[in-house]
Amino acid sequence: MPPTIPNEQWAQVIEKTGGSCEYKKIPVAKPAADEVLINIKFSGVCHTDLHAMNGDWPLDRKLPLVGGHEGAGVVVSRGELVEDVEVGEHVGVKWINGTCLSCDMCQQSDEPLCQKALLSGYTVDGTFQQYCIAKAAHVARIPKECSLEAVAPVLCAGITVYKGLKESGARPGQTVAIVGAGGGLGSLACQYAKAMGLDIIAIDGGDEKREMTRELGAGHFVDYMTSKDLVADVKAATNDGLGPHAVILVAVNEKPFQQAAEYVRPRGSVVIIGLPAGAYLRAPVFESVIKMITIKGSYVGNRRDTAEAIEFFRRGLIKAPFKTVGLSELNDVYEKMHQGAIAGRFVVDTSR
Amino acid sequence: MPPTIPNEQWAQVIEKTGGSCEYKKIPVAKPAADEVLINIKFSGVCHTDLHAMNGDWPLDRKLPLVGGHEGAGVVVSRGELVEDVEVGEHVGVKWINGTCLSCDMCQQSDEPLCQKALLSGYTVDGTFQQYCIAKAAHVARIPKECSLEAVAPVLCAGITVYKGLKESGARPGQTVAIVGAGGGLGSLACQYAKAMGLDIIAIDGGDEKREMTRELGAGHFVDYMTSKDLVADVKAATNDGLGPHAVILVAVNEKPFQQAAEYVRPRGSVVIIGLPAGAYLRAPVFESVIKMITIKGSYVGNRRDTAEAIEFFRRGLIKAPFKTVGLSELNDVYEKMHQGAIAGRFVVDTSR
Amino acid sequence: MPPTIPNEQWAQVIEKTGGSCEYKKIPVAKPAADEVLINIKFSGVCHTDLHAMNGDWPLDRKLPLVGGHEGAGVVVSRGELVEDVEVGEHVGVKWINGTCLSCDMCQQSDEPLCQKALLSGYTVDGTFQQYCIAKAAHVARIPKECSLEAVAPVLCAGITVYKGLKESGARPGQTVAIVGAGGGLGSLACQYAKAMGLDIIAIDGGDEKREMTRELGAGHFVDYMTSKDLVADVKAATNDGLGPHAVILVAVNEKPFQQAAEYVRPRGSVVIIGLPAGAYLRAPVFESVIKMITIKGSYVGNRRDTAEAIEFFRRGLIKAPFKTVGLSELNDVYEKMHQGAIAGRFVVDTSR
Amino acid sequence: MPPTIPNEQWAQVIEKTGGSCEYKKIPVAKPAADEVLINIKFSGVCHTDLHAMNGDWPLDRKLPLVGGHEGAGVVVSRGELVEDVEVGEHVGVKWINGTCLSCDMCQQSDEPLCQKALLSGYTVDGTFQQYCIAKAAHVARIPKECSLEAVAPVLCAGITVYKGLKESGARPGQTVAIVGAGGGLGSLACQYAKAMGLDIIAIDGGDEKREMTRELGAGHFVDYMTSKDLVADVKAATNDGLGPHAVILVAVNEKPFQQAAEYVRPRGSVVIIGLPAGAYLRAPVFESVIKMITIKGSYVGNRRDTAEAIEFFRRGLIKAPFKTVGLSELNDVYEKMHQGAIAGRFVVDTSR
Repeated sequence: MPPTIPNEQWAQVIEKTGGSCEYKKIPVAKPAADEVLINIKFSGVCHTDLHAMNGDWPLDRKLPLVGGHEGAGVVVSRGELVEDVEVGEHVGVKWINGTCLSCDMCQQSDEPLCQKALLSGYTVDGTFQQYCIAKAAHVARIPKECSLEAVAPVLCAGITVYKGLKESGARPGQTVAIVGAGGGLGSLACQYAKAMGLDIIAIDGGDEKREMTRELGAGHFVDYMTSKDLVADVKAATNDGLGPHAVILVAVNEKPFQQAAEYVRPRGSVVIIGLPAGAYLRAPVFESVIKMITIKGSYVGNRRDTAEAIEFFRRGLIKAPFKTVGLSELNDVYEKMHQGAIAGRFVVDTSR
Repeated sequence: MPPTIPNEQWAQVIEKTGGSCEYKKIPVAKPAADEVLINIKFSGVCHTDLHAMNGDWPLDRKLPLVGGHEGAGVVVSRGELVEDVEVGEHVGVKWINGTCLSCDMCQQSDEPLCQKALLSGYTVDGTFQQYCIAKAAHVARIPKECSLEAVAPVLCAGITVYKGLKESGARPGQTVAIVGAGGGLGSLACQYAKAMGLDIIAIDGGDEKREMTRELGAGHFVDYMTSKDLVADVKAATNDGLGPHAVILVAVNEKPFQQAAEYVRPRGSVVIIGLPAGAYLRAPVFESVIKMITIKGSYVGNRRDTAEAIEFFRRGLIKAPFKTVGLSELNDVYEKMHQGAIAGRFVVDTSR
Repeated sequence: MPPTIPNEQWAQVIEKTGGSCEYKKIPVAKPAADEVLINIKFSGVCHTDLHAMNGDWPLDRKLPLVGGHEGAGVVVSRGELVEDVEVGEHVGVKWINGTCLSCDMCQQSDEPLCQKALLSGYTVDGTFQQYCIAKAAHVARIPKECSLEAVAPVLCAGITVYKGLKESGARPGQTVAIVGAGGGLGSLACQYAKAMGLDIIAIDGGDEKREMTRELGAGHFVDYMTSKDLVADVKAATNDGLGPHAVILVAVNEKPFQQAAEYVRPRGSVVIIGLPAGAYLRAPVFESVIKMITIKGSYVGNRRDTAEAIEFFRRGLIKAPFKTVGLSELNDVYEKMHQGAIAGRFVVDTSR
Repeated sequence: MPPTIPNEQWAQVIEKTGGSCEYKKIPVAKPAADEVLINIKFSGVCHTDLHAMNGDWPLDRKLPLVGGHEGAGVVVSRGELVEDVEVGEHVGVKWINGTCLSCDMCQQSDEPLCQKALLSGYTVDGTFQQYCIAKAAHVARIPKECSLEAVAPVLCAGITVYKGLKESGARPGQTVAIVGAGGGLGSLACQYAKAMGLDIIAIDGGDEKREMTRELGAGHFVDYMTSKDLVADVKAATNDGLGPHAVILVAVNEKPFQQAAEYVRPRGSVVIIGLPAGAYLRAPVFESVIKMITIKGSYVGNRRDTAEAIEFFRRGLIKAPFKTVGLSELNDVYEKMHQGAIAGRFVVDTSR
């Protein structure tokens, strides 16, 4: 028997830039021929959602808007062209809701760079509602053995750090420095790095972070709050003193970036993750050339990265700490986020 | 009959920082067990030589010093461990005079990044003399069919731009923008790019440069002196308007760099060649991440790159315009270089 | 004014395995939501079409069947989901007619390996008819400046050899041996190899082939009919005698394959193109391991390879010799093909 | 105080092909300018040593010969050009004793493919003696915290399987099948694969092997002795049934090779390790092409691979089971090896 789909549902709606969300009933949409309708059970809350609400970025977005792009749920109906995704399947809705699948970027598996990409919770309605639309070719497949609640934060934060680690080019056995290793993205990055056979130098501040990153698999810790010479200390944490093969910057601002360019190994790479509004990277040309370093921006994962990131989770190698509240409490989460008072990820339960 | 090696020879010697060279007789050195002695016939003159004389860079150098690192000549004697290089062979002495061949960098074919690298005309005496020492494992092999005079500029300028093009990752058929395409390095870069099957967007100023780069194989030209919107014009020179797959910056300063980061294709790379003292690269994080661009420094080629760059020359695909003067006239060349009055490369003939 | 689409059209139809084609009128199909209908103007004839007619391969095919998979024409209508392809656009129909765009293989840009791939002229009707259906996301885009007649053979033969050359990993300046360089696929391979900056060793028999491959850009020729030691002669054609970096086998049978494994350079690759029924490759383990050679099968190009192969053609770097006859004469072409009496490619004109 | 070096030492000497070793006193050699003399403490015994004694391979070797190429010991003297290796340092002597460091292969970090490579215990005297010579640039660096006895088997077996895994191109999270996973090489391969973040399908026979490989980190086991359809069973062990991304064949013979070509994933690679005399690999062309599979031979690691393989050992991720006997008992070890009665590796102690 097919699932019963209501005409109305609960959602958190952004009506205008800079306000807050309104928790109210809105209609349930119908999937087009190449789309699926998903009964979202849980959705992670990401900093990006706050940026979207506040209009921080130089990218246009839909208004009114239902935010959210880390949603996990069950397919309840599909368009007539959809063959690969079944009703009843567990799927995830991620930042990239759909792309053209035809352009140069899509052809080379760089769907996130498609000029026509639809962005969940930004240019199309997202996962802070009970029933969400997504392009069938783009939903993440979630094995039934995975908890929908626990996997939600993997769908954006997990994929993003995994992609950054892949982009770094660091091979198993090599060393990666993770700047901000004790934060939300950083702690996921540590777990993925460990699962990928990398030796980790965690960079963060305080003994609590030291202990936490050690438990997540970091072999070394450099405390930026107490280090007298951070560049020297990071280099010293590598066998031969030449520095880590790669650096992952999960929270960029200018100073950590310049330091990274200094301590990264010759031929190494500095990967920038995250989208701070208005920040610049800056590096001395002479040293960059003479060390032949690479600086890369890494955005979000493509569909293959998504599947791989979820597979690491399925194998039990990734645990994203989270706290679940009702969808109705979303504004409280934003408030905490704004105050910088969040450790780990918040997940909203759309049933309450 | 082995060649006769004199005890004394003519050389151009830098006695102190910031002065000029003195043309005088100095003793001929003897090769150590793993070295060869080369009768330099011709040597190119590079901007780096001027930097070396003036002490512009944050790298220590030898004093007194014989400069020069684009020397072509004939092996006249060799140390007792040398088996691969024969007396009478034609070889080149390049910027990397020798390296340890043992460290992590040497092990992965990145000899130029060896911490113990000897630099010709910088940390060891170079090619502005009639008899020069080099590590046997590092001399460039020059086929007898190549003119020693014409190949000299390839030994630094040619290898460097070829390496930069390799590092860019651009594949045959893809598009590369060359910033400064009409200059000394740029015109070599155009020829290598063409030989590598790349489609070229030459960026430079003036109709003379337009014509010149067209003859060297550039399919497109953007004149930075007359363009009203350089970023838009470079993008428009590509089929789909998404911009070139790679950008080669042969003469970096901040403005061209920032523009390159804007017009390069998503997933493309910006390669920086050249070592301007004190310059910084600067790019907006948001756009770099969202386009997933790569920024790389490229130093000089390794031994394999050297052999490959010379092979393109041997096949007649590269012509570096040059003017030959006597070694005794080196100071005049520096004077012209200082005034920015040089088109093409100067080569010195050590016999006069 | 939209194009007028007839209800009936001329086609060559295979009714049963092992017979011949029947030239007759059949209905014109209508495109589904994600498909386009193309007025085929010209179609190349490939050996594969003969295999399809004769049922030589261990792959099921449709019956009755319209063959052909190198068709070039004009889009005359499209399904309602199609946005990227316009009516009036010039497009090509290739071997891969459509794929799921969702599976693991499609996600990593290996659409040709999709388990649900539709094959033109094999599992779906192909280009030996005046109006052909194809999935919009998969049609090749043909710039208007290209002749539809001349580009037709590029759509299978050209893409296939270009893909093989890419798969070989040979870089510009390196040496590739092309076995069967004077044949239909081989002569295209020579032109692509030259455009990609490769140095070519053509292997074929007879002075006519020698002259022909020289004109197509081959720097070396080894005549298998007169060579006393083919392996030695191929190695001798490389600078250092170590053999070519890659070998492209366009017409595999056991002997050329074993020789290729012998003369390929250590660390080199042997790429097999073409699908001979029942053939085996065989190589000695000891020598393969000690030389660390790679043996790869290369099938057809993906969409990106297709666009790239056509771009080389557009730039005037590829000329596939062909002879045009009417679609009604297709059986004569098969007859000639069966007799091995074809030099170059046959193209059929669907208007007669 | 420098170490005292005796004039004579104990060694196992092969006097002629097909005989046995003679345990006797021979002179201690002196290192040339670029060599070191090593006091070998322990040496692993490899099947290759048996092949060397029996003259099984089509490669010339020295006679009389001291075999052995998995030696671990202490540097006791060095030639006058050696700067990087210190007297007192712990080092390993491996199969590649030295290479020219100048040729095309050495230039691209493929020293094992150098045409002038010296092979320990094959073309130069090896490690079954108390004092062994090796080229300084080629000795493996062993951290002092590693047991010389335990690390010995890593120096050939460990490096070889690690190299094979690298060559496979399998990335962390992907699946690798290891054929012969329960044997000496196989059990090391399992450990390296696990440390590299790979998901492992162990293929071997019997419950003991099943249990052993499970403990070494294999997530799946296929028993070739009881499987009714090995190809189907291996494919079924992967999530999507498409087969493993890579297959490592540690003991090649024809049947396992053909099966591997069948069950490997489309676009996957089959890596052959080991040098069985006279074996051939054989694969159907049609299926190889249509699946685009890669078949590679992998020989031994280069210096970088060596350092990386040892680093995994140092971090405690690799444990090679071994049994130690006196050097004087070497013939007994060969006898057991000949009978196939060895589980794990034998190590000889040169002090007895």
